[in-house]
Amino acid sequence: MHNTPKSPYRVPFQGDFKVRDADTAPPKDAPGKKDLKAALAQNINDLAKLQDVLYAQDSHAVLLIFQAMDAAGKDSTIRAVTSGINPAGFQVFAFKRPSAEELDHDFLWRTNRCLPERGRIGIFNRSWYEETLVARVHPELLDSQKLPPDVDREHIWEHRFESIREHERHLARNGTVILKFWLNVSRREQLKRFVKRIEDPTKNWKFEANDVKESRRWDDYMAAYQDMLRATSRPWAPWYAIPADDKPYMRWLVSDIVRQTLQNLPITYPTLSPDAEAHMKTLEAEIRADLAKLSP
Amino acid sequence: MHNTPKSPYRVPFQGDFKVRDADTAPPKDAPGKKDLKAALAQNINDLAKLQDVLYAQDSHAVLLIFQAMDAAGKDSTIRAVTSGINPAGFQVFAFKRPSAEELDHDFLWRTNRCLPERGRIGIFNRSWYEETLVARVHPELLDSQKLPPDVDREHIWEHRFESIREHERHLARNGTVILKFWLNVSRREQLKRFVKRIEDPTKNWKFEANDVKESRRWDDYMAAYQDMLRATSRPWAPWYAIPADDKPYMRWLVSDIVRQTLQNLPITYPTLSPDAEAHMKTLEAEIRADLAKLSP
Repeated sequence: MHNTPKSPYRVPFQGDFKVRDADTAPPKDAPGKKDLKAALAQNINDLAKLQDVLYAQDSHAVLLIFQAMDAAGKDSTIRAVTSGINPAGFQVFAFKRPSAEELDHDFLWRTNRCLPERGRIGIFNRSWYEETLVARVHPELLDSQKLPPDVDREHIWEHRFESIREHERHLARNGTVILKFWLNVSRREQLKRFVKRIEDPTKNWKFEANDVKESRRWDDYMAAYQDMLRATSRPWAPWYAIPADDKPYMRWLVSDIVRQTLQNLPITYPTLSPDAEAHMKTLEAEIRADLAKLSP
Repeated sequence: MHNTPKSPYRVPFQGDFKVRDADTAPPKDAPGKKDLKAALAQNINDLAKLQDVLYAQDSHAVLLIFQAMDAAGKDSTIRAVTSGINPAGFQVFAFKRPSAEELDHDFLWRTNRCLPERGRIGIFNRSWYEETLVARVHPELLDSQKLPPDVDREHIWEHRFESIREHERHLARNGTVILKFWLNVSRREQLKRFVKRIEDPTKNWKFEANDVKESRRWDDYMAAYQDMLRATSRPWAPWYAIPADDKPYMRWLVSDIVRQTLQNLPITYPTLSPDAEAHMKTLEAEIRADLAKLSP
């Protein structure tokens, strides 16, 4: 397994993370908006090149998971980090309310077909972590999951964390590089963004009355996030708690962690064996001969 | 998690199983062929009823995994144990050489879409365990798996066992009952069955020259099986080492373990709430009234 970039925002692996102490705003000495945009563009430029090597080598996959409260900026961050990269090299999947067929399986089932292939970057907008967040704040959702009567409800969250940890460890061991981003927005900023969504007719479609109801459960959600981040930030699949009150800073920071991770990977363009290289040279000579024979 | 039936053939969970000590033939005092066939028929009768309750309750799934050397009787045992059960309630999947798309993913990926839904019995003819058997006896197969260069090859089998254990534990915790059958045939019996496949024109299609080559690697395979059985027989997903030299005994034994397992499950037909029951009674009265109005 590879080393993930160190960062003041990486959630520690020993399980003592405190949501209360995590910044939602950039540091005082952060670069200005213009500099952040330029740095983001440079990172995307680098990412586009690295993604090409990843694709050519065809052995690692990369999985980026995004989780956040409503209006934290998941969609716009995913858009900002991926635009400029070859669309053949990545896929974005958003996971909403599970279907009846999905509820007929264990909670890790539905994401499986969406896992990135070797050489690709897969992006999950929400993920299996919903099963430890919304289902935890609204445990009545468990009743729709058709769990057998002998499931150990008392330890269900602990067991889900264990299942997720082991699933991610298995993926990592077999070549999938996993990075997880919690976009940490403050409630004040969230509510301001809700107001904007109501005021701006082009943003109305993003606003749902239910979001306000969920926002009022803020403390319950933060408790669930804290437990989740503590239980599942591990060297093979670290969480980054990204300050999300300032969008340019958030976008640059996410792009920078992805870029560093790809730069640390042992990826190179495949090289030819001496035999294959000699064969290529022969073919080249033949092609040149064919070319010479063509009428001008 | 449920209790799996005790049996002298259940592979112990503490990892000291010895292939050398495992019987390939039935005990001396085993019932005769006729009695075994009658007992199998009775088990299938019971299984058909139990499967109906499983389906009605729609919360547990059952997964039966079969692994064995060639000609041990996987196909015929699966056929014997399932014929007579409602085909809507189970599905059989055979896993052969992985496709290019499947090799583009981790080794647990391809079986996922075939996992049984709640209320169903899923049967895997070969499974993820191939990745610790044929790939172990022929490690050159690993080269086609496009594993990243930083995969820990030294501990790869240990890591695969761990991935499998945790995957099965997750499934079990979420409602899938897992039973695993190793059909333990002797090499002498296997070779006799090969001869029959060559002598009988209707069985020629089952014979592959490569099977003879694999048979000569018997000791390597038995070492791989022993390691696999030790590492992955656990209370939530036990292995049964089934004597496979006598087909009627093998078929009855497998059916009996499945029957006992289903009988131990906390499954019942769903009962109606008093309100729903009252509503049903009202509807019944209305239907009877409609019936009475129909011209005779």
